[in-house]
Amino acid sequence: LTAPSDAARRADSTMLENLDLDLRMEKSAYREAMPRLRERLRDAQLAVRAARIPVVVLFEGWGTSGKGDSIASLVYPLDPRGFKVYTTRAPNEEERFRPFLWRFSTRLPARGDFSFFDRSWYRRLLEDRLDGHFDKDGAPAVAAEIREFERSLTDDGFVVIKFWLHISKEEQQKRLAGIEADRYERWRLTQPDWRRHRGYKKYGAAAEEMLALTSTADAPWHLVEATDRHFRRVKVFETVLAALHRALERGRGGDPGSGAGRAPARAAEPLDPDLRRRAENVAAAGPPTILDRADLTKRLERADYEKRLEKLQARLRDLALECYRQRVPAAILYEGWDAAGKGGNIKRLTQELDPRGYEVIPVAAPDATEKGHHHLWRFWRQLPKAGHLAIFDRTWYGRVLVERVEGFASEAEWRRAYQEINDFERHLTEFGTVVVKFWLHVSPEEQLRRFREREATPYKNHKITPEDWRNRLKWLEYRGAVAEMIERTSTKAAPWTIVEAEDKLWARVKALSTVVAALEDRLGA
Amino acid sequence: LTAPSDAARRADSTMLENLDLDLRMEKSAYREAMPRLRERLRDAQLAVRAARIPVVVLFEGWGTSGKGDSIASLVYPLDPRGFKVYTTRAPNEEERFRPFLWRFSTRLPARGDFSFFDRSWYRRLLEDRLDGHFDKDGAPAVAAEIREFERSLTDDGFVVIKFWLHISKEEQQKRLAGIEADRYERWRLTQPDWRRHRGYKKYGAAAEEMLALTSTADAPWHLVEATDRHFRRVKVFETVLAALHRALERGRGGDPGSGAGRAPARAAEPLDPDLRRRAENVAAAGPPTILDRADLTKRLERADYEKRLEKLQARLRDLALECYRQRVPAAILYEGWDAAGKGGNIKRLTQELDPRGYEVIPVAAPDATEKGHHHLWRFWRQLPKAGHLAIFDRTWYGRVLVERVEGFASEAEWRRAYQEINDFERHLTEFGTVVVKFWLHVSPEEQLRRFREREATPYKNHKITPEDWRNRLKWLEYRGAVAEMIERTSTKAAPWTIVEAEDKLWARVKALSTVVAALEDRLGA
Repeated sequence: LTAPSDAARRADSTMLENLDLDLRMEKSAYREAMPRLRERLRDAQLAVRAARIPVVVLFEGWGTSGKGDSIASLVYPLDPRGFKVYTTRAPNEEERFRPFLWRFSTRLPARGDFSFFDRSWYRRLLEDRLDGHFDKDGAPAVAAEIREFERSLTDDGFVVIKFWLHISKEEQQKRLAGIEADRYERWRLTQPDWRRHRGYKKYGAAAEEMLALTSTADAPWHLVEATDRHFRRVKVFETVLAALHRALERGRGGDPGSGAGRAPARAAEPLDPDLRRRAENVAAAGPPTILDRADLTKRLERADYEKRLEKLQARLRDLALECYRQRVPAAILYEGWDAAGKGGNIKRLTQELDPRGYEVIPVAAPDATEKGHHHLWRFWRQLPKAGHLAIFDRTWYGRVLVERVEGFASEAEWRRAYQEINDFERHLTEFGTVVVKFWLHVSPEEQLRRFREREATPYKNHKITPEDWRNRLKWLEYRGAVAEMIERTSTKAAPWTIVEAEDKLWARVKALSTVVAALEDRLGA
Repeated sequence: LTAPSDAARRADSTMLENLDLDLRMEKSAYREAMPRLRERLRDAQLAVRAARIPVVVLFEGWGTSGKGDSIASLVYPLDPRGFKVYTTRAPNEEERFRPFLWRFSTRLPARGDFSFFDRSWYRRLLEDRLDGHFDKDGAPAVAAEIREFERSLTDDGFVVIKFWLHISKEEQQKRLAGIEADRYERWRLTQPDWRRHRGYKKYGAAAEEMLALTSTADAPWHLVEATDRHFRRVKVFETVLAALHRALERGRGGDPGSGAGRAPARAAEPLDPDLRRRAENVAAAGPPTILDRADLTKRLERADYEKRLEKLQARLRDLALECYRQRVPAAILYEGWDAAGKGGNIKRLTQELDPRGYEVIPVAAPDATEKGHHHLWRFWRQLPKAGHLAIFDRTWYGRVLVERVEGFASEAEWRRAYQEINDFERHLTEFGTVVVKFWLHVSPEEQLRRFREREATPYKNHKITPEDWRNRLKWLEYRGAVAEMIERTSTKAAPWTIVEAEDKLWARVKALSTVVAALEDRLGA
């Protein structure tokens, strides 16, 4: 991976012309490099979350240059609860009636999270400019606005990583023609793709000017020679890693101008040894419930697991694409005991999906604004759009689980919630939404084993808190609440699936195959 | 105001046909009744806020039957910080890709607030049904969804008030023709208006069915004979008042099934007498600042005030309409000392405006979600749409006022905020937004007088808390912060106006005329 040497630059050639589009990476070298890069990015995500650094990664570049593929390869190793992917198209009416930065401002990541943009606010300096949406001399003013916007982000501790993916006109023509010839891919092509291709030179000139006007010290552009897929992916990974490490370094240095060095939201609370002892010995016996029917001895050998996983993930990828084409929305709900493996399960579910088509929504306790509204209000706001998958890590069932057991909801409130939720989900299914609901079930003994393992493993340590031990004390109460929930909200259109999660491999395959079956059923595929 | 007598009903006539459309109210009777109705509604708003009851008021009915006028007359006496008005048009793409209730669910009021809907989710059973958006036998299923949705609201303590405004086909024809003949009003007419008129019978039949399917015990329809404007307005007022009083009654009775009886968010904190004594005697002298230039002796006689107010309000109403037609957005910012009179000032600013064209946004301390984002993020989300006015009661300047003085922002953070805010406001003004910024200035002596008055007046008592006294202790620090803010953020495009607010009447007229001048300037009117 070397930059084009200075000697090769001619005075009369431009920034983009200077790129060496013949750069390539051998498949073998790529295969060797990638696992390590992924691991490093996963580690960086944990560090970024701990340091509460918000990260914006945006991709601009020629059509077919691999923006979507770059994002997909970056998010592959990431915890899907920590990022969102946004695809930028022409603004809709709501958006046109507001300043052009509005729709991006509202999509900025929270501290510790990532937002990936497939096209971005730079559209304003490319399409909008070429299409005459503002005075042709207006580019410098727009660029200034963008610089100020990014400056206010980087000043606040944001990492802003900007990529321009570059291919030649000939390469683009080859790719467009290839897609056009493929009857499964053809639908992806739109009118503007060829139009922009014909205007390659004009578009390129606008891009050059954009790059010159908006490459700043804190938010520089990274130009990527994108002819070779392997080369491109690796360069993107290394660039992102370098930027994150610089920010983490700064954070440790306690740069006073940056929000990145600030303390995490929640200071570690010491664990009362007495609480721990009592929670370890919690008696989990009680009247039999529907949960007892789960056969927790179910497990899968790793070889078998890997074979099935690969097949199911590929199948799900196709089905998700079909959902997009048929405009079918899906909501996948995860509930389960603490340490039952929700995060890892969701990770396997989403791993091979196009990140532009799904969203993972982690649900915590409602904040002050949310408490001021109906308990379903915050979920209404997060419903999947037709054609998209929303995966909820904890859900609206909090009302009849934690809020019931901990007394945050009155008895009248949680009692009527069963009906409210059934109604709410029926509104979803009648709209055509596929609703899949998982309860990840483990035995109290297995939970204890996992708690101890988390305590003993440094990088899992943050996942176990006194809160978890306190919840465990109430195992029996939760067990009753879970059983009642499953009994009262398993409807024909939105049934619960109890996932035996004593063995994580089994649980992942079961969840995946349940989602696959539900989508096949709905799509008639 | 009497309902049509049962004797007049014929077995073969329908609900709507039974309405006596000749009902009228004399102007003199109306003039006598209205002030009292307004006062009662204002009192009811205070009680509803204290009891934290969310209120939904929706209007359906024939085109030109007076839905907008009914809402305007209802909100006239209300504190604009406590309500929002939504106009329902055909769903846009974002909305079509989600269940039809989505866009309404996300617009539900917070506890203690009102949402008014000019057309509502019932559009689904009227336009959408007649236009064949779903299977023609699907109305009962849609109606069931709506009943369940409303049920989940009323169960949660919401008051849901539904109006059908009724006029005859002849009356509608007369009104449509009248609008068409008026060259200032003509633009309001759209193609569907006449089309729906020609289909009066079909539309009426759908409405009848809708009323029958969705009039429930907890959320009944109220049919209003809307031929006579006075009769209609008074009936609407009385209906709303009756519904609110019933809910308040229930709240006092502590109905266990209702969220309305719950305690308000903030329990009264006792006032430390020592704090009070120190705050009373706060020394407000200090180095001279730009604030000293304000001439606090300025005042207006009431007669003069009323004359000017009326004129300015009428002018602002025209200008706001012109903003709508020219798609010009405006942001009016209010900052000022505690008890400087922001609320009353905003009330006069908005009183005569079409409530569908403006929004008052009360700004409190950021909640947990907002704290997890860039400090401007929550304001980006609330920017006015082109053609609309957004009035902020406290603003993004909190960063350099309360957050600075109380230490909620680090010095580096509030220092760079001046530039961030200037950039942010320039983005707004470059988009075409009119930005007007008020600092309402009073002397510390006047503030003390008002604090004491609030303590002594039962219905103002809730407006004074120990927090206010604590803030007063820091008068000098705030004074310095205000002066620096005004000096550093008074830009050509978005200048500050210091409003001498020792006399409330003067302050209201000054703010109004400043807004009028700014809009005239922008609109070239």
